[in-house]
Amino acid sequence: MEIEKIVREIKKKNSFLCVGLDSDISKIPSHFKQSSLPLFEFNKFIIESTHEYCIAYKINTAFYESRGVTGWKELESTISYLNEKHPVHFTIADAKRGDIGNTSKMYGETFFNHMKFDSITVSPYMGYDSVSPFLEYKDKWTILLALTSNIGSNDFQKQISDNQFLFVKVLETSKNWSDNIMWVVGATNSDLLRKVREIIPNGFILVPGVGFQGGSLDEVVKYGMNSNCGLIVNSSRNIIYSSDPKSEAQKIQKEMEIHLKTTFQQSL
Amino acid sequence: MEIEKIVREIKKKNSFLCVGLDSDISKIPSHFKQSSLPLFEFNKFIIESTHEYCIAYKINTAFYESRGVTGWKELESTISYLNEKHPVHFTIADAKRGDIGNTSKMYGETFFNHMKFDSITVSPYMGYDSVSPFLEYKDKWTILLALTSNIGSNDFQKQISDNQFLFVKVLETSKNWSDNIMWVVGATNSDLLRKVREIIPNGFILVPGVGFQGGSLDEVVKYGMNSNCGLIVNSSRNIIYSSDPKSEAQKIQKEMEIHLKTTFQQSL
Repeated sequence: MEIEKIVREIKKKNSFLCVGLDSDISKIPSHFKQSSLPLFEFNKFIIESTHEYCIAYKINTAFYESRGVTGWKELESTISYLNEKHPVHFTIADAKRGDIGNTSKMYGETFFNHMKFDSITVSPYMGYDSVSPFLEYKDKWTILLALTSNIGSNDFQKQISDNQFLFVKVLETSKNWSDNIMWVVGATNSDLLRKVREIIPNGFILVPGVGFQGGSLDEVVKYGMNSNCGLIVNSSRNIIYSSDPKSEAQKIQKEMEIHLKTTFQQSL
Repeated sequence: MEIEKIVREIKKKNSFLCVGLDSDISKIPSHFKQSSLPLFEFNKFIIESTHEYCIAYKINTAFYESRGVTGWKELESTISYLNEKHPVHFTIADAKRGDIGNTSKMYGETFFNHMKFDSITVSPYMGYDSVSPFLEYKDKWTILLALTSNIGSNDFQKQISDNQFLFVKVLETSKNWSDNIMWVVGATNSDLLRKVREIIPNGFILVPGVGFQGGSLDEVVKYGMNSNCGLIVNSSRNIIYSSDPKSEAQKIQKEMEIHLKTTFQQSL
């Protein structure tokens, strides 16, 4: 998916919301469990409830893998459904893959060619040749972990490397790898978003951690928004396990609309 | 699997060989493709050809995921077969996972509870709370990426952090996380194995990169072996795509036997 399409959707919907389909069999309403593919049925319900208010869907592969073959069918059915019914939405395989070249090539095959996701999250730890097989796909996006939303981001990402944080080194190095790259920067690190924006002023950032994990949308917008919006903010549990996912998504979209009208559209 | 069992097998077989089941549908002999689960049939052939000469099997999940539901069935069938027919072999899910806590928990569920692997490879980039859900499983092993065998290991792993390499920081930090932890150190970095052994003298190291990727078994043994052997050396493509996998595995086992007799058994 071209970046222009993503920006067009952001403008059209006044939203930069990504709904995270972290669908957990132990948490979904019981009536979905009568289906042979309960997570897929649940996901269809969430997608139909939220698609007007979001511009992206992020599928967390762990929740599907943990269910074996059934889960894999639910994953494939969900991405097929999105591609068929909602092709304007940007799709993210939140898989956090990354391995030596011939193996990353296989993962690229899985998520880009076989399932036709628009993007995949990738860990940078193994360096350029572990990421490059993903970058070879035209119109596909590699979303590289830079600074994640969890406490453990202190352990290595915020270690000093060459007199700078490791995540800064990751950003500085990877920004030259390709045009088809985005980065994960957690909302819980919004104070560091300013630093991130100094390095990648024009790039797109996928921001997890708003809501359940405690990140603030106001701060993410303040430090992270650029003239292309440049933000895709994910919310998973807050929306999908809400008693009314549609209202919850709409509520976040309304907040985003205010930010877009005051910040984004002024700069157009 | 307890470490004593692994060491017992190493002594019994005079081998610390791990056979990597990086089974690629485009490379396996065509007669396996008549089956509904060709990678599983191929894996059974490889396992039956090699099990006397190796103490572990490493299954590279990417090669199975890339085939969708069929691949997932082949993966599940292979690990079930190993657990049933060859329970003394240490099994490794080479999945390189790692995510925020609730997601890593799902991956632990997948590979440890559902499929009953003995171990999984995990990326350290997201820090302690992304790894700890794997560590909670008793008798299961988390194999953390430290210094990988690819060129890209120069990009971040060999960056200086707090006046030390990032991979050293990863080792120093993670060695206190649990007793149920091993590390990946690529054979192509054998010069740095001495440094690794200063930090984790007693731990076990999974060593990829011997053979096809150019690493030397002699050097790995010289710098990496400890009084428990402490090494699990993987070979994938060299064995499984050989015209005679059994002879190829036996050849490597014979080399290992010499090393074990000169180095390991002297120190007992």
